[in-house]
Formats: sequence, C-alpha cells, structure tokens
Amino acid sequence: MATPAALQAEERLGALVSVLDVVRTKGAASRGHLSDATGLGRSVVAQRVAELAERGLLAEDAFGPSTGGRAPRLLRFRAEAGHLLVAALGATSADVAVTDLAGGVLAHREERIDVAAGPDAVLGRVDELFRACLAVATPAGSLWGIGIGVPGPVEFESGRPVSPPIMPGWDGYAVRDRFAAYGAPLWVDNDVNVLALGEVRAGVARGHEAVVYVKIGTGIGAGILAGGALHRGARGSAGDIGHIQAIDQGGVVCRCGNVGCLEALAGGAALARDGEAAARAGTSPFLARVLAERGAVEARDVGVAASHGDPASVELIAEAGRQVGRTLAGIVNFFNPSLIVVGGGVAAAGDVLLAAIRETVYRRSLPLATRELVIQRSSLEHGGVIGTAAMVADQLFAPRWLARWLDAGTPAGLAL
Amino acid sequence: MATPAALQAEERLGALVSVLDVVRTKGAASRGHLSDATGLGRSVVAQRVAELAERGLLAEDAFGPSTGGRAPRLLRFRAEAGHLLVAALGATSADVAVTDLAGGVLAHREERIDVAAGPDAVLGRVDELFRACLAVATPAGSLWGIGIGVPGPVEFESGRPVSPPIMPGWDGYAVRDRFAAYGAPLWVDNDVNVLALGEVRAGVARGHEAVVYVKIGTGIGAGILAGGALHRGARGSAGDIGHIQAIDQGGVVCRCGNVGCLEALAGGAALARDGEAAARAGTSPFLARVLAERGAVEARDVGVAASHGDPASVELIAEAGRQVGRTLAGIVNFFNPSLIVVGGGVAAAGDVLLAAIRETVYRRSLPLATRELVIQRSSLEHGGVIGTAAMVADQLFAPRWLARWLDAGTPAGLAL
Repeated sequence: MATPAALQAEERLGALVSVLDVVRTKGAASRGHLSDATGLGRSVVAQRVAELAERGLLAEDAFGPSTGGRAPRLLRFRAEAGHLLVAALGATSADVAVTDLAGGVLAHREERIDVAAGPDAVLGRVDELFRACLAVATPAGSLWGIGIGVPGPVEFESGRPVSPPIMPGWDGYAVRDRFAAYGAPLWVDNDVNVLALGEVRAGVARGHEAVVYVKIGTGIGAGILAGGALHRGARGSAGDIGHIQAIDQGGVVCRCGNVGCLEALAGGAALARDGEAAARAGTSPFLARVLAERGAVEARDVGVAASHGDPASVELIAEAGRQVGRTLAGIVNFFNPSLIVVGGGVAAAGDVLLAAIRETVYRRSLPLATRELVIQRSSLEHGGVIGTAAMVADQLFAPRWLARWLDAGTPAGLAL
Repeated sequence: MATPAALQAEERLGALVSVLDVVRTKGAASRGHLSDATGLGRSVVAQRVAELAERGLLAEDAFGPSTGGRAPRLLRFRAEAGHLLVAALGATSADVAVTDLAGGVLAHREERIDVAAGPDAVLGRVDELFRACLAVATPAGSLWGIGIGVPGPVEFESGRPVSPPIMPGWDGYAVRDRFAAYGAPLWVDNDVNVLALGEVRAGVARGHEAVVYVKIGTGIGAGILAGGALHRGARGSAGDIGHIQAIDQGGVVCRCGNVGCLEALAGGAALARDGEAAARAGTSPFLARVLAERGAVEARDVGVAASHGDPASVELIAEAGRQVGRTLAGIVNFFNPSLIVVGGGVAAAGDVLLAAIRETVYRRSLPLATRELVIQRSSLEHGGVIGTAAMVADQLFAPRWLARWLDAGTPAGLAL
C-alpha cells in the first residue's frame, strides 16, 4: 500500500526524471526553460535541480541569452559523473568504446570479428577491448553501466539473445553473467535498435517520432521508433525485414530456409556473391582485378567499384537498392514514417544505392505516405556505440532504475 | 511560467486522469486497487475519488470480495453521466449509435451508404440517423462528444480527411463544422483505427500491446497499436496496406493506379469481380444462380458460397487469404505483433479465409515472430461504434481536454 510518504517519493522521482530527461536529451537549459518543458512549477524545478546538482548530475554552466532581465544560468547534464562501457556488435565487426553518460566517446576500438564464433570467444574479445579502452581513457567517475548491441533478436528484460539466426551458440546466453565482474548493470539490445536510437539522440532523426532505420550490411534489418520510443515488438524481433519475401517465385535460398527473401537478394552476402560472379564472367574489369589480387570479392568492393563508375557494379548496387526500396515501399504504406535512415556497410558505398531506394519508394508508396517522407543516409560515424550508450543511459535514468540507485549516489553494483 | 498553484493543479489533474483511466478501461475497482494500479497514495486516491464522485464521474458500487477484513466498496465509472454520438463509416456502410461514455450502445442504426456520394450527402444522412437514434434512446445526461470513423486517412488534430482515395470530395472537409449545431466536441479517425481500438478496449485484443487489425472489406486496411496506443503515422496514413505490392509483375490495375496491389487481388471488389467471372464461366453453379437472380455477384456471395462448399468460391476465398497472408507475413517480420485481428465483411465469410491467412503467415514469417502470434477473427458485432466511442472518450478524459472542461462539469460546448 502506498503511503503519503511513498506518494511524495513517487512525485519527487517523477520530477527528477523529467528535469534530467530534458537536460540529458535536449541539452543545456535554464530553470525557466525546464519549468516550461516539464510543466513543473518553478519552485519544484528549483528544488529538484538543487538535489540533482548535489548528487553531481547537474551543474551550473555558462549564462544563457538574456530575455531582458538578468541572463539566466544554464544547467547542463554532468555527463562526466560516470562512464559507460559499450560494444556494438555486427555480424563481422565490433565497435567498442568507453563513453561518458551522454554517449561522448572517450576511447574507442574497432575491429573485425565473427559473431558466429560464439559468445565465449566474441565476448572474451569484447572484454579485452573494454580493458584496452579503459587503459587509455582515464574517465572521470566510476563505471555506471554496460551496453551490448548484438545482430539478432533480444529478450530485453533478461538481456538474452533469442533464437538469433546468424549467432550460433548465443540463444539464451546470459550476457549479464559474463560481465558480472564489472559490478555494473548491463543491458543488451538489437544492433539496429541502438543505431536507430543513436540517430534520434544525436543524428538525423532528432525530433522525429516515427522512424525506420534500415541497416544494409551482411544482412538487412530495421530499427523502429513509434511515438519517439523504440518499438521492440512482442518477442523482441521487430524490424527483421531481411526475410520479408521480396519476389514471388524462385530466387536464391536464404540462410533462413525460405526463398525470395530480401536479404538473399540485396544483402552484403548477396552483393559479394553477385560481384564475384561478375568478376568471373568478365563483365566487371574492376572486380576482376579485386578477385585476382585478393582471391575473393566483398560487398564493399562492389560499392567501391560502383562509386568508380564500374557499370556492372553500378547495376548490382542499383538493383539491390530497388529490391530494398520495394520492401520499404510496403513498410511506408503500413507504418507511415516521417524519416527512413539508411545505414550499414553497403549503404556507405555511395549515392547509387540511396537513389535507387528513393526512386522505388516514392514510386511504389501511396502519395500521402511519402508527401513529407525523407530518406537519407545515416549521419553518425560511431552510431552503434552512441546509440548503445543512449540505450543504457535511458535505462539508468528511467524511474524504475533511478529509484533503485539514486540514494546510493551511483548505480554501481545495481543488480538487474 | 508555472506557479506552485499551477503545479498543484497539474498534479491533481494527473491523479484524476490516472484514477479515471483505470476505472474507465479496466472496470470497477476498490480504492486499494486504484492505489496499487496508479502508484498514488491512498489519501490522494481517496481525495480524487471524492472529487470525481462529486462531479458525477464515479459512483460507489457493490461490495467487492473481502480479503479478510471488511469487504471494500467498489468504484465504477458512471458511464451514464453523459452520452456520445458515434458513426462508423465504411465504403458502403454506416453504423450509427448513441452510446454511453463507456461505449455501451443505447440506440443503433445501420444502413448501406455510398461514401463516394460525398460529405454533404453522407454526413447529412448520418445527422438524420443521429436524430433517429436520439429519438428512441432517451439517454441520461447531456451530449458529451461526437465521433466519426471514415474509410481513409485523417489529420487527427483538425479532424479533416486527407487525400482519401475512395472518398471523392472529402479531402480537407471540415467535419467538425458540419456538426457544430450539436455544441459538443467532435473527433474524426480512420475506420480501421477505431476498429482496432474497439478490440483493445472490449474485444479479443484486451491486454495486448502490439496489435495489427486487418479489415478486409471492399478495400483492405489495417489499424496499428504500438505500446498499447494507436499508431497513426506521420501523416495519419499508417495501416494503408491495401496498396502494398503483393505480386511482382502484371496483375490487375488497382484504383490507386499501380499494378499488383494487395487490394486489387484480394479485396471485396476483387472477389466480387472474380466471383462474377466464375459464375459466367460456369465453374460455380452457386454463384451462377446468384448472378441469374440478382444480376450481379458481391463479395459476400462468394463468402456464402464458400461456406456452403462451392469449390470455385472456396478457392477464390483461399487465394485471397493467401495473398493477404503473404503481405501480413512481411508485416509480422517488421512489426512483431502479438495479435492479428481479422475483420471486415469478407472476413465474416467463414473459416476458409482465416485458415489460408494463418497457414501463409506461419509459413512465411520468421519462427521467433510467430512463436506466440495469435491470428483470430474480430469478436465484436458493433466494433466500429464501440471503438469510435472509445476514441472519443480517450480524448475527453486525456489531461489536455479534461483540464478544459472538468470545472464546467461537462464538455458540452468545448471548442476544439
């Protein structure tokens, strides 16, 4: 039973979270601005700001612009109060960083991995990279949280991957236990979810409510924001667009066992396969040279070749874009986003892909759904780690978790 | 600038909305249950309950089950405090009702219309049906709100249809002005959105967070719930799945101008067309009799024929189900709902359609996305009016609007 004291604690917590959220996600603000943005009275804002400052989460910053009277002091989130360890894992890459509490990167290591090597090998290496980053970063504050993005579906509550198709050995793996020695709370999320969150917090998706982030890498997946919040789906598998049937009949057998899947037609593995075939068939002199030099063609080679004007590669990339565009056209009709962000290794290739996607979506979707639709490339270089840090911070500063650690001063040792 | 008094008003309003929401949408509750469900202290709940009772929105009801001590009094929402006028319009039907504030139907009129006759003709008839319902309902309380569901995209804030493809003359029409004489606030929403809301509030979708409601009538459309709330999309056109390209090449030209659209293959108009062709070709004796008797075949005739075992009709309905299922399989991968509700005139035909949809979705979607996915038929006879009433009540009792009418006692005269 909630007592009046418990009620007051609840109201206090709600006000703390509201004030923190504005400063954390929107930037420095005056007390007056905080009052307007949260709907809380000035006296309550002043009390909560004082409490957050006392706990080292807010600091008085520079003076803001005056609106006539005395220039108001701006309050900023003390991102340096603690630090986070984050790892954004793709099928073949690990992007590992120490960040501050706002996702500012303090130290960073990126390398090729094979996620199919299994959780012991991959997370062992992530652990080493964490320690390597910590050795050079000398962050202020203690470790407040750990975040891991993985290329597969995740049961968010438990932090366990669930039947991830390209991650053998990871199904149900207790990622939290693996990093228990750090004594910090840990959350796991899907790799494309954190990329989407990164773009909303620090990239091109700022201010958008309905967003689809499409990652075209080895595989193809999407992250979805509805009402500005991540939509993870009933089983954490939302956004798995790589296995939507893109063509009616025939087509290549996909790793999922079906035929005609988008990913088997337009993913990085498909591009590498078709690029190598073009090299062997002699239709692409550029890729033939790559094949002769390195013995294999990768998706990124096809992208580089296309950006150099190699006709066969331009056509491969454009056809991949048209296939992705046809699937996205259906998603646009269904979901009516205001923004589609295209990211991933294949997307980095150049403008041919984006142009083909745009052309197909605008032609195949209903006019109303595309009237204000923007389709653009991901803007963040380290979107994975920025998004993973945002995912962890969002959890740490949500009422549910903040209530559990605020009086202790830091979330270190918080058991999930 | 928010003053301490304004802050108190804000907190009071939040508590009122929380208490009302539980009783309104979850049913009768004791004060203790309200405290648990809202996280508010018992003293605050008691104060807010008293205030809501004084304003006639809550009433003491029967005694609930005792948990040892004195049996607690249950509080119920006084749905009879006012009434609503609601109209659920489809392409060819109008379902009009007077309901209480909880969507309980007090009087009801249903008839065939042609929404393409334009807003003056259609809404003029709706107005007559409103008056006919009011003449027999003798509802307690005054008129608190009006809701209209229309078969097209709507700009929800202004209540105006936006480029609705099957509603010529409705684009930008000021529906609110048309009913201004009633002196009650009016909201307009998409027909499938209100059907989805009806199922969440009173039907098979209760307790689900991620839901897709598919209406297969003359056209095909979907209503989407994400996080338990309606997802209307950036331009109010979310759920327009009828024009997703269902087949690669060829196919019939759709009314939207594209070829291969789902609706042109599997909608009611397509079924009527194919059923009539079967009648003329002599492959369906059942439909040939219908054609001879009435000079035309409608989609519902094909459904009736299928449920009587007419082989050609069974195959037409099953093929429509497979086409819908293929599109839904992609949506399941993208959105990962826990429930798909199938409704609309064609869905009423029988089990053949549902079986074909299920079989295709379970075969074509990823196993994780379908592991706990339920696909079932709509459960509500008057889902459109129930959902439209829920849509209106949700607006009336949201903080934004409640603040504007609560002190006046009723929302009558509330200008939007």
